[in-house]
Amino acid sequence: MTADIQPSLGDRLPIGGTALQAKIAAAAIELFYSQGSVATTVREITAACGLTPGALYNHFASKDHLLYVLVRDIHLQVDAQMAATLANSGPNPADQLAATVRLLVGHSAGFRKQSRVANREFTFLTGPWRQEVRDIRRQIRDRMTGILLAGAERAVFALAGGDDLASATLSSVTITNMCVHISAWALENYPLTISDLQDRYAQIALRVAGARPG
Amino acid sequence: MTADIQPSLGDRLPIGGTALQAKIAAAAIELFYSQGSVATTVREITAACGLTPGALYNHFASKDHLLYVLVRDIHLQVDAQMAATLANSGPNPADQLAATVRLLVGHSAGFRKQSRVANREFTFLTGPWRQEVRDIRRQIRDRMTGILLAGAERAVFALAGGDDLASATLSSVTITNMCVHISAWALENYPLTISDLQDRYAQIALRVAGARPG
Repeated sequence: MTADIQPSLGDRLPIGGTALQAKIAAAAIELFYSQGSVATTVREITAACGLTPGALYNHFASKDHLLYVLVRDIHLQVDAQMAATLANSGPNPADQLAATVRLLVGHSAGFRKQSRVANREFTFLTGPWRQEVRDIRRQIRDRMTGILLAGAERAVFALAGGDDLASATLSSVTITNMCVHISAWALENYPLTISDLQDRYAQIALRVAGARPG
Repeated sequence: MTADIQPSLGDRLPIGGTALQAKIAAAAIELFYSQGSVATTVREITAACGLTPGALYNHFASKDHLLYVLVRDIHLQVDAQMAATLANSGPNPADQLAATVRLLVGHSAGFRKQSRVANREFTFLTGPWRQEVRDIRRQIRDRMTGILLAGAERAVFALAGGDDLASATLSSVTITNMCVHISAWALENYPLTISDLQDRYAQIALRVAGARPG
């Protein structure tokens, strides 16, 4: 169901981490997803891994550092997958938009807990860590904006509000948010598979972009 | 800039609360918005109001109860405003959709902190409180779905995936989420006013619904 996802930085968190770091990361994602990072203690994370509380500090400087590494690496993986998707989807902006939307929907529906943690908990990062994640988010947004602008220039798309940069960016953030904040209803009650959801969202995104028929 | 919003349950939180409860509510919204409800203490809320910590318990059973009342009342206000908007926007589903989207965008852009708290912090409610808020959210979603289905039946809309209930609901949650999770970029960097954003989003929503020209 997630065949469209092509991880190029590995699909394990943190990127380049050891097996034990990956185990800590998996436990943290579960806890951050269900109760939020603020309410989660180091003790709960290590207990879920069968470790003593102090053991976490051999791998991460703090709970907030662990959150930062996880949120950063989830964003880095999605950004790298987006670059790979763009490189492999040919020159037509409509094809690029559909492929990119399929990737984002595949991630938010197929890696639901990672996606929720990345997109909800990043707001609790501060300082340079938050800035770094914002920069990656901006890069993801700019890739989408680039597709829309290229399509507008080639008259493949007719963007809402006009074919200027601001209108392209507004459509870009709308489409990206649509894929990232895929509704709990769609995931829990919708009678279709993730692949079907990818198709539906791609169709909706092409409508948002004002894709011309054919 | 928020002329489209027609509060019918009062625009003060909590609904029907006393002046002091409204003051506590306003302080809580600020803190819940900036640092999340989990990280916020009763002491911080009361200090922001110039009250002793114990004073909060004369008005709310606990911090979680206060969160519940706020989140519930914000949702109730939006739902009531949506009903009023629908009652005042005539029989054409395209007009109803545009008016409803303007309302939701006006709320998320014009009452940004309330909107963020309602849509992020509701996930931390539990038990019957969470269920009650979910029911109000479902009612908001169903109002939007009703507009889309009526439009599909009258061939005003051609919904993505077909004109069945599941397709209408998927478009409904997509449009609703689009308005609720209006991007920080759109609010901070977009060179247009809230009124302009309402127009753009209404146009995009009509595209998502497959509104026929004219």
